[in-house]
Amino acid sequence: MKNAILFISAVLLLFSCEKKIKSIYVKDLEELELAIEQVAPGDDIVLKNGVWQDAKINFYGIGTKDRPITLRAETPGKVFIEGASFLHLGGEYLNVKGLYFRNGYSPKNAIIRYMIGEDSTANHCRVTSTVIDGFTKPNRLINDRWIVFYGKHNKLDHCYITGKSNDGETLRVFFTGNEHINTYHQIVDNYFGPRPRKGGPRAETIRVGDSKTRVSPGFVNVSNNYFEACNGEVEIISDKTNFNSFKNNIFYKCEGSLVLRHGSYSSVDGNIFIGGDESDFYGGIRVVNTGHWITNNYFYKINGSNFRAPLAIMNGIPMTPLNRYLQVSDVVVTYNTWVDCKSPWQIGVGQNIKSADVLPISEIRSAPPIRSIVANNIIYNTKKDESPVINHSKIDGIRFKNNLIDNNNIKYTTYDVFQNGTLKMKKINDWLYAPEDAKNPILNEVYEGYDFNKIQNDIFGSSRTDKNTIGAINNLFLAEKFKIDKKKYGPDWFSPKETANNQKVFLASSAENELADKILQAADGDIIELTDSLYTIGESLKIDKKIVIRAKDTKNKVKLVFTGTDDSSAFEMNPRGNIKLENLILISSKNKFTFAPLKEKMFSNYSLFMEGCTINGFDYVLKATKGSFADSIHIKNTIIKNCKNGIELAADLKGDYNAEMVTFDHCEFENVKGNVINFFRDGYDESTIGGCLNVYNSTFTRCGNADSNGILIQTRGIVNVTLNNNTFKNNPIKLVALLWGEKNNHQMNNTIINSGIIKIEDQQKLNILY
Amino acid sequence: MKNAILFISAVLLLFSCEKKIKSIYVKDLEELELAIEQVAPGDDIVLKNGVWQDAKINFYGIGTKDRPITLRAETPGKVFIEGASFLHLGGEYLNVKGLYFRNGYSPKNAIIRYMIGEDSTANHCRVTSTVIDGFTKPNRLINDRWIVFYGKHNKLDHCYITGKSNDGETLRVFFTGNEHINTYHQIVDNYFGPRPRKGGPRAETIRVGDSKTRVSPGFVNVSNNYFEACNGEVEIISDKTNFNSFKNNIFYKCEGSLVLRHGSYSSVDGNIFIGGDESDFYGGIRVVNTGHWITNNYFYKINGSNFRAPLAIMNGIPMTPLNRYLQVSDVVVTYNTWVDCKSPWQIGVGQNIKSADVLPISEIRSAPPIRSIVANNIIYNTKKDESPVINHSKIDGIRFKNNLIDNNNIKYTTYDVFQNGTLKMKKINDWLYAPEDAKNPILNEVYEGYDFNKIQNDIFGSSRTDKNTIGAINNLFLAEKFKIDKKKYGPDWFSPKETANNQKVFLASSAENELADKILQAADGDIIELTDSLYTIGESLKIDKKIVIRAKDTKNKVKLVFTGTDDSSAFEMNPRGNIKLENLILISSKNKFTFAPLKEKMFSNYSLFMEGCTINGFDYVLKATKGSFADSIHIKNTIIKNCKNGIELAADLKGDYNAEMVTFDHCEFENVKGNVINFFRDGYDESTIGGCLNVYNSTFTRCGNADSNGILIQTRGIVNVTLNNNTFKNNPIKLVALLWGEKNNHQMNNTIINSGIIKIEDQQKLNILY
Repeated sequence: MKNAILFISAVLLLFSCEKKIKSIYVKDLEELELAIEQVAPGDDIVLKNGVWQDAKINFYGIGTKDRPITLRAETPGKVFIEGASFLHLGGEYLNVKGLYFRNGYSPKNAIIRYMIGEDSTANHCRVTSTVIDGFTKPNRLINDRWIVFYGKHNKLDHCYITGKSNDGETLRVFFTGNEHINTYHQIVDNYFGPRPRKGGPRAETIRVGDSKTRVSPGFVNVSNNYFEACNGEVEIISDKTNFNSFKNNIFYKCEGSLVLRHGSYSSVDGNIFIGGDESDFYGGIRVVNTGHWITNNYFYKINGSNFRAPLAIMNGIPMTPLNRYLQVSDVVVTYNTWVDCKSPWQIGVGQNIKSADVLPISEIRSAPPIRSIVANNIIYNTKKDESPVINHSKIDGIRFKNNLIDNNNIKYTTYDVFQNGTLKMKKINDWLYAPEDAKNPILNEVYEGYDFNKIQNDIFGSSRTDKNTIGAINNLFLAEKFKIDKKKYGPDWFSPKETANNQKVFLASSAENELADKILQAADGDIIELTDSLYTIGESLKIDKKIVIRAKDTKNKVKLVFTGTDDSSAFEMNPRGNIKLENLILISSKNKFTFAPLKEKMFSNYSLFMEGCTINGFDYVLKATKGSFADSIHIKNTIIKNCKNGIELAADLKGDYNAEMVTFDHCEFENVKGNVINFFRDGYDESTIGGCLNVYNSTFTRCGNADSNGILIQTRGIVNVTLNNNTFKNNPIKLVALLWGEKNNHQMNNTIINSGIIKIEDQQKLNILY
Repeated sequence: MKNAILFISAVLLLFSCEKKIKSIYVKDLEELELAIEQVAPGDDIVLKNGVWQDAKINFYGIGTKDRPITLRAETPGKVFIEGASFLHLGGEYLNVKGLYFRNGYSPKNAIIRYMIGEDSTANHCRVTSTVIDGFTKPNRLINDRWIVFYGKHNKLDHCYITGKSNDGETLRVFFTGNEHINTYHQIVDNYFGPRPRKGGPRAETIRVGDSKTRVSPGFVNVSNNYFEACNGEVEIISDKTNFNSFKNNIFYKCEGSLVLRHGSYSSVDGNIFIGGDESDFYGGIRVVNTGHWITNNYFYKINGSNFRAPLAIMNGIPMTPLNRYLQVSDVVVTYNTWVDCKSPWQIGVGQNIKSADVLPISEIRSAPPIRSIVANNIIYNTKKDESPVINHSKIDGIRFKNNLIDNNNIKYTTYDVFQNGTLKMKKINDWLYAPEDAKNPILNEVYEGYDFNKIQNDIFGSSRTDKNTIGAINNLFLAEKFKIDKKKYGPDWFSPKETANNQKVFLASSAENELADKILQAADGDIIELTDSLYTIGESLKIDKKIVIRAKDTKNKVKLVFTGTDDSSAFEMNPRGNIKLENLILISSKNKFTFAPLKEKMFSNYSLFMEGCTINGFDYVLKATKGSFADSIHIKNTIIKNCKNGIELAADLKGDYNAEMVTFDHCEFENVKGNVINFFRDGYDESTIGGCLNVYNSTFTRCGNADSNGILIQTRGIVNVTLNNNTFKNNPIKLVALLWGEKNNHQMNNTIINSGIIKIEDQQKLNILY
């Protein structure tokens, strides 16, 4: 008997040796193409280290479960895919490992796609340990998706993806037919690095389906990923098929939410949402549709409101069109914890019955959530929250059971949805608080809802079977051991660069070209100090990095006279350009601009900061170009005078707009003839931060006399506008501003002398964009 | 060792003996209630044989899988539940067996309901071997459902259900929350007997969900059932959740379809649809939504068109509202056979772009089917079909592969969707044809679509693995063995009564009350012959069964003079009343009606036939009452004259209407002052046959002079109208008729002299009812 086993083992060994892996080392695209053509199950194609320029790779092969076909870097991270490149997969059981996409963009609609053509979908294929960094289209308005899933059982894991600034989701899963449903795709262990604010929709980091797939079974698993500053739009993840899982992900300072947009029956379990005081846009979980289970999630300092609320349970539209909002029903929210979040529970979000006059009936979200349960949750605040629950519509369709609030030990009574209690919480790290006294009886009063026994563990894996408490954390010991280990996410060979701290200061005299040269020499984040008192700038200064230009002597402003050609700008803002000017006086004759972005290839954002400056005599202070986008424009203690136009951010149509955060504080506008501030968005949808315009403590004198439409501060279509503590004097204008009452438009303490009025229009009729 | 096993066995035996079934014999409702209160797992409650009057049974108990709790008839079929009765179940593992519901109705909204109250849903409960016969509400307009499913894993099997004539589906499955989805309900081996035409919606035999559950997983199994003359409305089965199965059912002469209305991903396999020449309303499968697999189905003489086509693949509405039509996509139709059906494939059904002026955009079905495949099907016609395929919209979103047509051996070329071929078919029985020559190469050209290999068997269970042919039948031998065995469906103790053939003839003289007495004595289907020449009817004759009243001497008409009180009718039509008058002359003075249904409790249909009669001097020939419904009104060779009104079928509102099939053939209308024919439906939906008005070969003279609206034949809202070969002469009226061009309204060969015109209005604007 033993001999027989030995014999069989030997045969098996022989058999498996015969099938050993064949390595095919390829040095260029031609060799690669040939290798792919001839590939057999078990083969291992190895890409030579180095730069692969314009690599249009269609990787087709039929591997098997036991003998997949691999395409990999000779050394992980040392194979750079650059230029006009992509990698599309088709066939079965293919693996891709260790590639680095940079310095280029895909000429197609995807970089990595799990489909080559309609008859060559990928199934059981995996891309792992790969980086895509800034591989973004040159034109922000041209759509692509970086990673596109088709087929079934495909996987993306341990990848690092960052820097998409053009139109289109970073990752999209398609469900276009029976070959592409019930997918069991795995999107796991990835690091989704920063994605800048895009302005407007189609900038999700992950989108699973579309409105037409809302009845389709997805079974996509998005788990154990790290999302950092994924700020593209209001939806970090947009779930649009059924039965998907979102588990154990970390959302770190992302200005958006995990949105259950058109999907139903999703499982949202064990996720961590970390925000902070620096932004009011960090979001949580937004709930639409039916049958979701939201369990064991932890939220810290998520301060987003309304659509971005830490928990936003939306109102639906009765008999909604396919692409709008299904009424929420049968949703379970249990065992979650919110710590120091602003108004964490918002129920009936999106209720807009008052807009019935300006919107069609099929847009009116009048149907409140029904048949849902919110139970066993904890809200813990170290400072009192005035309104931990905001009821936008009706909350009686939700059963609230055994929820606990410790509102800095101040009793909350507005809605009867909590027990008030006092918790002893241990601060484990910057963002993690866990109950210290597990014997606190109030923690042990657990409500057993229908099927709750299927929730077997807490957020950190502690069993709920033996001992069970409310909130996300059931076990202090395991919580204390928990640490975010960024190494677990993305490729093991790659670490995202930390912000450099070795900021250098350059000195620039007024000698010809010296300032331009110093800008060229400076690295991202450096500072240039101007040592003389007068500079003549004959040609536009190109700004394509983060740079500060300031007077060395903080007490004496430096004068810069721009003498460039007509229609050119003193500072030419390039993609990723980020300039801060301090204590400068900018002077020009007419027909010139202070700042302007490129007219084309403005593939990424720019930002603009000024403090203590004066701008005098320009045609435009800033003139946006079509497709350009300013992440931030912050102007402080600055005088703008004798200009033909001020800041014009109005170059785009159809819902695109030209800037996100625009702030003026303690500024003086004097004799700016038109477009003093013109911030415009044409058309309306909700997948947007804004834009956002704040004007504080500023004065406007003798401005706007050439404005054809008679409005001094134009904000048509802008969602967030605040005008506070300003003085408007002797501006020959009909309206100082026309605000949109229904949206987040406000004004306070403004002094208006001989300058028209601020008018508030509650409802504005705009083109709907979907 | 052996001893130990013996010992353990003995202990187990002892243990199981101890747990033996406890039978609780109950004689009345009080005892039953007590028994239910005290019941334990494994108990068997036995209902004493006999009539149980007003039995309001809430059967609550917690059985176990191994030890269910049973409630059963002492002798199956000998326990009659009558009066105001119902049986609602709550708890787990309950069985109900052998009951007979008759002579009554439920005072609640259900007879059998798998839920007592919100906190007592039934799970794992079964009702078997039970009959519900005519247990219908006294008022047709009051809604109930006879069998209502909630919970999960419930079963209805071997039941016989017939005769529901009031508003509401016969069987409904609800999905109102997480406790009621993923149900795995079993609706199997039942006999769904005749359900009469209801007129209008909410008369499905089975409805699984509603429009709001279109995203929900149902997993309901409706298999091996027999449906006979389920004519309630256009949908026999309405599928409105996902992942449901409809397998091996037989639809025998049902005037409706299996409609995949709001559900997706259903499996429709191995069903048999049998129609016939006698009706144009027998339907097949109607397809909406996504991901259905329609395989191995057999259709014989299904002549329905449009919504009722043998295969109706609908157009959808772009971004449809929740309750309207989702575009068809990803549907697979393969291995089906159509024999002698009329235009069996209708694609883009419901396309109504031309109605854009009268309907809101959210009603316009402009989106044709996409990404679908129709392959390996057979159409076989023993007479040539001019248009086996009707393209209502666009068919290029469907791939047609390896379909075969034998159009009585005449080549079909209109659309390139078939191979033409000649089949040798064996006629196995009245309705079943199977290919005789399995070696015919054209049968063996099978297209292998995506995932087709999951279709392992043909309609009769023959394996497709070894040998495979197109069409539903893969194996002649198994087809020849197939026979419909009605005994397999419904309870084994019950057989639906066959139509009696022992029709009796009664003779009635003109002696006082003799006619009325004979009507009383006659049984359903009998005939009364009038032997004298003149009868005076002093009181309304009550008609509550099927009866023929005719002159004994077919050559001499018999005169009946009605002298009843004002506003009474010569023939009072009661529920299920069905009268045929032959060779009679009916005479009255004013203020009397010839026919009228009851004003209340008109719980079932009536029908009215006349041949060779004359009606003279009545106020109304027929005046419908609110909620009354005539299945058929056929009047032939009959003179209607000197009446104030003719046939008025206009008593209802909101989509209800008063008759289904109304036909006049070779009739003469003379001096009928108003409402000559007034057939009215207010409001519009599509879940309806009609009504249907045919007027052939008739003359209208000097009629309509008192008609206020100026229309002689009023058909507002009626979907099917045909006016052929009639003569209209000297009618002082503006319009003979106002027809609805968009619907099935037609006129031909009419002669109009001095009588206005027939006007056709293509689009009519009606209130939509949903």
